[in-house]
Amino acid sequence: MKKTSLVLLFIATAPLVLAQLPLPSWNEGPAKQSILEFVAAVTTPTSQDFVPIPERIAVFDNDGTLWSEQPVYVQAVFIFDRIRQLAPQHPEWKTKEPFASALKGDLKKALAGGKHALLEMAMATHAGTTTEEFEQIVSDWTATARHPETGTLYTEMVYQPMLELLDYLRANDFKTFIVSGGGIEFMRPWAEAVYGIPPEQVIGSRLKTQYELRDGKPVIIRLPKLDFIDDKAGKPIGIHQHIGRRPIAAFGNSDGDFEMLEWTTAGTGKRLAVLIHHDDAEREVAYDRDSSIGRLDRGLDEAPARGWTVVSLKKDWKKIFKTDTSIFSKEDAL
Amino acid sequence: MKKTSLVLLFIATAPLVLAQLPLPSWNEGPAKQSILEFVAAVTTPTSQDFVPIPERIAVFDNDGTLWSEQPVYVQAVFIFDRIRQLAPQHPEWKTKEPFASALKGDLKKALAGGKHALLEMAMATHAGTTTEEFEQIVSDWTATARHPETGTLYTEMVYQPMLELLDYLRANDFKTFIVSGGGIEFMRPWAEAVYGIPPEQVIGSRLKTQYELRDGKPVIIRLPKLDFIDDKAGKPIGIHQHIGRRPIAAFGNSDGDFEMLEWTTAGTGKRLAVLIHHDDAEREVAYDRDSSIGRLDRGLDEAPARGWTVVSLKKDWKKIFKTDTSIFSKEDAL
Repeated sequence: MKKTSLVLLFIATAPLVLAQLPLPSWNEGPAKQSILEFVAAVTTPTSQDFVPIPERIAVFDNDGTLWSEQPVYVQAVFIFDRIRQLAPQHPEWKTKEPFASALKGDLKKALAGGKHALLEMAMATHAGTTTEEFEQIVSDWTATARHPETGTLYTEMVYQPMLELLDYLRANDFKTFIVSGGGIEFMRPWAEAVYGIPPEQVIGSRLKTQYELRDGKPVIIRLPKLDFIDDKAGKPIGIHQHIGRRPIAAFGNSDGDFEMLEWTTAGTGKRLAVLIHHDDAEREVAYDRDSSIGRLDRGLDEAPARGWTVVSLKKDWKKIFKTDTSIFSKEDAL
Repeated sequence: MKKTSLVLLFIATAPLVLAQLPLPSWNEGPAKQSILEFVAAVTTPTSQDFVPIPERIAVFDNDGTLWSEQPVYVQAVFIFDRIRQLAPQHPEWKTKEPFASALKGDLKKALAGGKHALLEMAMATHAGTTTEEFEQIVSDWTATARHPETGTLYTEMVYQPMLELLDYLRANDFKTFIVSGGGIEFMRPWAEAVYGIPPEQVIGSRLKTQYELRDGKPVIIRLPKLDFIDDKAGKPIGIHQHIGRRPIAAFGNSDGDFEMLEWTTAGTGKRLAVLIHHDDAEREVAYDRDSSIGRLDRGLDEAPARGWTVVSLKKDWKKIFKTDTSIFSKEDAL
């Protein structure tokens, strides 16, 4: 090849190289900067903050951090759909709360009992099947369930900047984990395709299970008993149980993630803790201190003193969702 | 380079290539053959049994499968050492069984109460610390604790053929997991250095834990309550909890591994189930149907009909331990 051809080749591929710069959907600013600086510090072999590859563990909350939790948790929608499906086998639900309200489509009333009501509905609709049957039920649902306002598949309503962040960390030899209050078996069937996170790196709340033989074939049965709630102080417990070492980076969006960030940053060496702040009423929903879902209050107060990075959707993200930037704004909704 | 040099180079490197053939400590025979054939079948892209990389999950029991469990489980020795260490804080142990016998060095009598006695001693010696303190205690112990008959570090008394098998599977893009009845936090501190298995791929029995702040610093406290026993039917449960998908290969040595092999082989597609049979009284200890430790009875009966591979230490392994072949024979003992 002649030198001129080489130069031309360089010019021709330059835009391609630019497109591969990390975090293209993040605006320049202190949030993006803190992420880039952290990754450079822990991956540069000559850096005093260098971290060997096996210890590069990054943990991510799911609802409100990787995908939308508005107007309700996606898993709550799944629960309501399951209640409608299972209603013929439960005539008593017609008059029994919170099921009665759920069946009438009054989700606000069904959820009025708070976490207790949600748990009661989760048990009634998530147990009684084998693990394989439940996986199929979740897969079938996520393949078709769409957000009521946008008409978009829930699995497409994931945050584009966070997808880029997951890729960027993995390209720097991080192992990425989900640590969510949501059901572990509700996330595993689709987390690999949507986030590139395999089932063994998904941590969540779970039911007790039981091994048994049915017609000579072994199955694992999902029992209507809570085994573990992976929320608040449960998150460091879940991390320790599944990962067995302390993460060096943690990403959340609510006070349910506080202890996970606290545990992560209490380790020795350089750490990164990030809170996603939903402050964009135009492109998503603005919510924090007074929200019943994804409440972020203590985190906002303490982030500056603790050196935690707060990401503003409004300022820091060029694009919100994987599919389109404006799908969530009320004006554009169906 | 001239053609003759190339030929010379080829001849010179040939022995090196031979040395890198898989499983050098395994004798030729049906056991080694079944492993090699399985790996070829699931990793050859044109094979009808091809398995994509993320699904190449292999699970290994630890005691009696990866390291020696004779004359007692290594963790039992650790428990007895901890009892001696903690005795000054527990004057009541002098007269209370099984602690009294343990303190007198009568391990047989201390273990006469079976699993219940062992559990009681495990609770008393494994709880009450933070997770970080316990990790340090285990690391200090494994750095110095030696087998009473051989004088070898326990972490060196690992089976050389199994180390080669772990490497061979990983070289073929398998993810290797430990699934042991032993304590998850007893194995994690050394499994990475000894087996190349990181903490997040170690599954075991565990205590309940609690997150709290001590002097403003978050810690996870180990409580004297069992949370999960990863044995027998607990092994498929532990696998499902931690990995979230069914392994395609499973390796065990006792009836405590039966359900793990049963669960693994009940999946669709090609599967490999292997039982290590301790039949070598010369180089290790011969034990199976009547042993209280590592009892292998149902597994031996059912292996042929189920298509499970039985590995004979005597016939299939050229070398037993990582360090030396004869360290376990009574004649050579200290």
